[in-house]
Amino acid sequence: MKKPLKIYFSSICLLIMGYTSSYAQKKFNQKPLVIVDQGAFSAGGSVIKSDGVFDALKPWNVPQGGQTRHGDHADVFYQIPQKAKKHALVFLHGYGQSRRSWQTTADGREGFSDLFLRKGYSTYLVDQPGRGAAGQTTKPAQVTAVPDDQTWYTQFRIGLYPAFNAGIQFPKDSLSMDKFFRMMTPNTGSVDESMVVNAMSSVFDRSGDGILFTHSAGGAPGWKTAIKNEHVKAIVAIEPGGFDFPEGEVPEGNRGGKGLPLNEFNKLTKIPIVVYFGDFIPKENTNAASLNFWRGVLATGRQWAKVVNAHGGDVTIVHLPEIGIKGNTHFIMSDLNNKEIAEVVAKWLHDKKLDQK
Amino acid sequence: MKKPLKIYFSSICLLIMGYTSSYAQKKFNQKPLVIVDQGAFSAGGSVIKSDGVFDALKPWNVPQGGQTRHGDHADVFYQIPQKAKKHALVFLHGYGQSRRSWQTTADGREGFSDLFLRKGYSTYLVDQPGRGAAGQTTKPAQVTAVPDDQTWYTQFRIGLYPAFNAGIQFPKDSLSMDKFFRMMTPNTGSVDESMVVNAMSSVFDRSGDGILFTHSAGGAPGWKTAIKNEHVKAIVAIEPGGFDFPEGEVPEGNRGGKGLPLNEFNKLTKIPIVVYFGDFIPKENTNAASLNFWRGVLATGRQWAKVVNAHGGDVTIVHLPEIGIKGNTHFIMSDLNNKEIAEVVAKWLHDKKLDQK
Repeated sequence: MKKPLKIYFSSICLLIMGYTSSYAQKKFNQKPLVIVDQGAFSAGGSVIKSDGVFDALKPWNVPQGGQTRHGDHADVFYQIPQKAKKHALVFLHGYGQSRRSWQTTADGREGFSDLFLRKGYSTYLVDQPGRGAAGQTTKPAQVTAVPDDQTWYTQFRIGLYPAFNAGIQFPKDSLSMDKFFRMMTPNTGSVDESMVVNAMSSVFDRSGDGILFTHSAGGAPGWKTAIKNEHVKAIVAIEPGGFDFPEGEVPEGNRGGKGLPLNEFNKLTKIPIVVYFGDFIPKENTNAASLNFWRGVLATGRQWAKVVNAHGGDVTIVHLPEIGIKGNTHFIMSDLNNKEIAEVVAKWLHDKKLDQK
Repeated sequence: MKKPLKIYFSSICLLIMGYTSSYAQKKFNQKPLVIVDQGAFSAGGSVIKSDGVFDALKPWNVPQGGQTRHGDHADVFYQIPQKAKKHALVFLHGYGQSRRSWQTTADGREGFSDLFLRKGYSTYLVDQPGRGAAGQTTKPAQVTAVPDDQTWYTQFRIGLYPAFNAGIQFPKDSLSMDKFFRMMTPNTGSVDESMVVNAMSSVFDRSGDGILFTHSAGGAPGWKTAIKNEHVKAIVAIEPGGFDFPEGEVPEGNRGGKGLPLNEFNKLTKIPIVVYFGDFIPKENTNAASLNFWRGVLATGRQWAKVVNAHGGDVTIVHLPEIGIKGNTHFIMSDLNNKEIAEVVAKWLHDKKLDQK
């Protein structure tokens, strides 16, 4: 790592104050949310125990054995609106993110989860094991502080930094960019996919029948959560990073692993699934590694939909520019047009009869 | 560290399901919350930058210089009820905790912040820099996974593990204990007090005039936040771990540092402050290190109140057993009697004319 130069943001304070007052005014014109219950809980997880005998008279003695550590759970914030619909919505974030991805936007507009709370859905916002409020894990980790904002800016298809993609649905002001970068949050432990799947399954044990919304790296554990827990009645996947094929039908170079036994895979054919992709994904390979990456993911997604549907499934791939919605980044749910996107998703839920009370 | 033994909690699922249904039923009998605005934002923070030039065509090249990292901010979840009172409440957690401390309880009852939201206060729930959703920092950290639940159980005065203190206001069932341990979450970076104070001051720039609620290790940066930002109109401190004395008046062995210049300290004399301590703090030293620790903190707190008040301040120390409220742990705001505690705090706010619309 190169030597970091520290910059303090005292000048930003004035900006924030101006931004806040106009912003608050805008939001206060909305109808109030009526919440019959809200709260937080942990779901699932594991426990490790050290040998020895704990001495309660000297609790800080080191090493102090005979102790437990509870970790690897998910952390959930939930809200239940008045006259809630039958199916809860459960939101799982992507890599380097937390439930913040769904709760707000870079420029402080209403997040995707609140847009659906307004539509009468209960919302369950998850921090996966080792992320955000679910920071306690059973396996240590080194958290680095290497500057990498521009890598993510580029990977998330905001543009080839410092450029913005033309016609992008992303706020270009420096304050929004600052807020966006601050939504990243690191892994606090060595977490593998099975930990996430186990914890997510416990979330559905608590929420009951629901619809799983996933973003990016949340996609892969999302498929396996649906396989594991029958409370998952549908999946809305936003640019999932990987796909689970059946054994023997895995395309070359698939990022989703070596294939599932058919009896497991077949569970994905029993529920409706919709997958959304944003803009700026090229048809042919380019000289930009990030764009080629997403070109590969979209191609794999289309192939996966064919395979699931050939096995009797109900997968729809929606490449937004093909239905006339342009300019979306990898963060479709918080882009400037997220209200329009929410309407597209709401219509799909309605068509699948998943919006009933 | 001793070799850890892994235990999976499949059997707990059945317990959770039973617990959930009775619990949900109980909460649904309450009046709904009417929220005119809610959301999340980051506040304050700093930026580091690496030397070199960023190559957007190869964003994953390592090392990849010319990048920024935004970190050291606070993360805030806020809710504004209909007809909100004039002063917002800003909640800062303690060591190893996040805003979860205020949002819920070990046994899933309503947390302290929701009790005050019901009273008409806007609530701003903070994750301090390097904790929870504010995980992105500018200084790396090693996160260990050493089993230490019993150290905290003892330090937090639940009892001398495995014993429970007699007459304790804490749920003794194993599921609540499990949930309580899972509220711990580690530091994700090397964070010092000034980072917390700077970020908290930015939170108040956004919230406007408000009352700062602190718990435990949040106490010390809390005093300095009030000194830094005039939007802090009062402090409610729950068992603060340290106190800020003026230079030349610091008692021996004080954990709060070497003393503040008088012109800074004097700002603490301009606002009303109340400090609450729970039960099980002995009058004389015992053979238990954790109890002696809290005995020292309470004694320092009483001394500090005398000093602030001698300089013209308005500090009240409330040792709850002395007003007939017994059985409280270090987590006064989430103990079984947290509704009763909220009434005690609400009366103080009323007496200080801080509950106006």
